[in-house]
Amino acid sequence: MLKETTIDHALRATWQAVAKMYNEQAAKHGSTMATAFVLLNIDYENGTPSTALGPQMGMEPTSLSRILKNMEDDKLIYREKNPVDGRSVLIKLTDFGKEKRKISRQSVIAFNEKIRMELSDEKLNHFFEVTDKINQLIAEREIFNEIKRKAV
Amino acid sequence: MLKETTIDHALRATWQAVAKMYNEQAAKHGSTMATAFVLLNIDYENGTPSTALGPQMGMEPTSLSRILKNMEDDKLIYREKNPVDGRSVLIKLTDFGKEKRKISRQSVIAFNEKIRMELSDEKLNHFFEVTDKINQLIAEREIFNEIKRKAV
Repeated sequence: MLKETTIDHALRATWQAVAKMYNEQAAKHGSTMATAFVLLNIDYENGTPSTALGPQMGMEPTSLSRILKNMEDDKLIYREKNPVDGRSVLIKLTDFGKEKRKISRQSVIAFNEKIRMELSDEKLNHFFEVTDKINQLIAEREIFNEIKRKAV
Repeated sequence: MLKETTIDHALRATWQAVAKMYNEQAAKHGSTMATAFVLLNIDYENGTPSTALGPQMGMEPTSLSRILKNMEDDKLIYREKNPVDGRSVLIKLTDFGKEKRKISRQSVIAFNEKIRMELSDEKLNHFFEVTDKINQLIAEREIFNEIKRKAV
């Protein structure tokens, strides 16, 4: 019973459902959610430094470089020396990558529009307030410190 | 800019933050979030059929059986022939597993109580309404069918 009503369970189950849906949608275009997600995180015109992508996406360097390698093989992206900082590398979209990015963006917009159509602004704002508060409390390490203080 | 305000981004980022926090908390007890999650999904007294666990947890059979194997090695669980159905196996908690399950449950309760303390019931109810609606629309395959219908 506990797990049905907890906040973490709602987050986990809902994110898993969204991820599964996005993966199925990506598969229709011969892609994956991870690839689509990387495409969306690369600046359309100027590309994005490879070192910025991982932190920006909350992704482990090893998983990210595996995906980037595949995306390079698929000619969705290419690497270019950063004109501003010679030691770093820019990940840039090919024309094909730009096309695919547009399709991914359409799917994200379609999903968000559909959900927004079905729910009031008030409910959605409260949803964002709740997720913001959770992120804030976790970032401030408030959750389990609180218990320690109580236990002392 | 898009990704900062999308519903999927809020879900993904928040679930990742919660998972990271739970993993750090589990590590303090020499465990992982996945193990804690399995412990919480096993019926305390009667155990749970191994075939029911995967669907209940939304977990792939291969990942689940790897975790169950480790948990058996760690003496957190044991397998017993199902008295009701001889072909299926029950996963049951050892006394040590029951102890660890209580600790996991405390962490889940602490997290949920902390969040509930910081947010009004109205906001939380709207949060759950939004996640329920997302799950419902995905389950009914409403999201991308809608686009197809519009496009025709």
